[in-house]
Amino acid sequence: MRLLYHFWLSAPCRLVRLLLHEKRLDYKPVIEKVWERRADFLALNPAGEVPVLVEPDGTTLTHPMVITEFLEEVHTERSLLGDDPLSRAECRRLIAWFETKFAREVTDNLVGEKVMKRFLRIGQPNSESIRAGLANIHYHLDYIAYLSETRNWLGGDEFSLADIAAGAHLSVVDYLGDVPWDDHGEARAWYQRLKSRPSFRPLLDDLIPGLPPPRHYADLDF
Amino acid sequence: MRLLYHFWLSAPCRLVRLLLHEKRLDYKPVIEKVWERRADFLALNPAGEVPVLVEPDGTTLTHPMVITEFLEEVHTERSLLGDDPLSRAECRRLIAWFETKFAREVTDNLVGEKVMKRFLRIGQPNSESIRAGLANIHYHLDYIAYLSETRNWLGGDEFSLADIAAGAHLSVVDYLGDVPWDDHGEARAWYQRLKSRPSFRPLLDDLIPGLPPPRHYADLDF
Repeated sequence: MRLLYHFWLSAPCRLVRLLLHEKRLDYKPVIEKVWERRADFLALNPAGEVPVLVEPDGTTLTHPMVITEFLEEVHTERSLLGDDPLSRAECRRLIAWFETKFAREVTDNLVGEKVMKRFLRIGQPNSESIRAGLANIHYHLDYIAYLSETRNWLGGDEFSLADIAAGAHLSVVDYLGDVPWDDHGEARAWYQRLKSRPSFRPLLDDLIPGLPPPRHYADLDF
Repeated sequence: MRLLYHFWLSAPCRLVRLLLHEKRLDYKPVIEKVWERRADFLALNPAGEVPVLVEPDGTTLTHPMVITEFLEEVHTERSLLGDDPLSRAECRRLIAWFETKFAREVTDNLVGEKVMKRFLRIGQPNSESIRAGLANIHYHLDYIAYLSETRNWLGGDEFSLADIAAGAHLSVVDYLGDVPWDDHGEARAWYQRLKSRPSFRPLLDDLIPGLPPPRHYADLDF
């Protein structure tokens, strides 16, 4: 059985969970509390980070981009990157946009400060970072609106890993109730389409002990 | 003509410069001072970051991973990622290691604090960050030693993008004289082999106005 070591509110882990579901690849999720630095886990990934995917033959893959490219190369039935080098480049550009720029400007400032610092026991949330995250998210939602208005989905006409990467990050911020949907109708319309996909269901069922999500989180008609 | 918008001490830019040279793809380098936020440049890359590669047909590519994958897909003569999905996964894992982990733990703390803050005019270097960078580099050099002892090059038997990514980051730190080579003979031996490749030459000729490198920087026998 394929194993995925992950943590609930990790956006890169959610990216891989969504991708596996969209590609119809079964897996068993395993919660890994990375701050415990288990020796067995460090042997799988010396970087000590999730996600880590262990394929049925024992092949171990770390880092969301590595996992993404591997699954696309090996399980080619349902491509989620695109059919030609240019489409794939545009899709990868947007994955990188969310995995690096959105992560740094929004996710780390909100989820990192409010939740992960508590788990990692590395001090109090920094209110300046939280304010920055809440301010930065607006222009990212504008960018999503721009892309989904000019195209059908973010990366082009087809649903792709660009939507998956964006949805992974927005869903963890939404778990905290920090996405200002009321100000961003276009982005909300795109997210509603995403949220109603079966691959999104398991994410909406996530329930972090001691940290319940706001009521609208799992609501498809939020 | 292919254009590469880059900045001297940006490791991701150096990664692309090395890759283009190794793949024998001609290009014209263009220095982009990203902090000036030129409108024409933002039109090329809304993320406002280097590297940006403009192919002879006008195709514009941003982000080192996007550029890397595109060049590998389109210019297949000299592959630098590997010949099968597993080799490519290992190579991509190490690219991600240097582009995210090494970058965050070492490059950002040293080059970011000492140099980029000055260019960006965003305050004084943080001495705590610099101390962290100088401490963290040791275990990365140990990891390079471990990999280059068990394999011929970092990613496997062949020279690959894993070496290029590692060399890109180490070379910018070395420009500041902050690599403790004397404590890491194995890593030095690997870097010597890397440094003597023709693709490395242009990097060793970089001369940043007002910030000369230490004497050993361009020396192949340092």
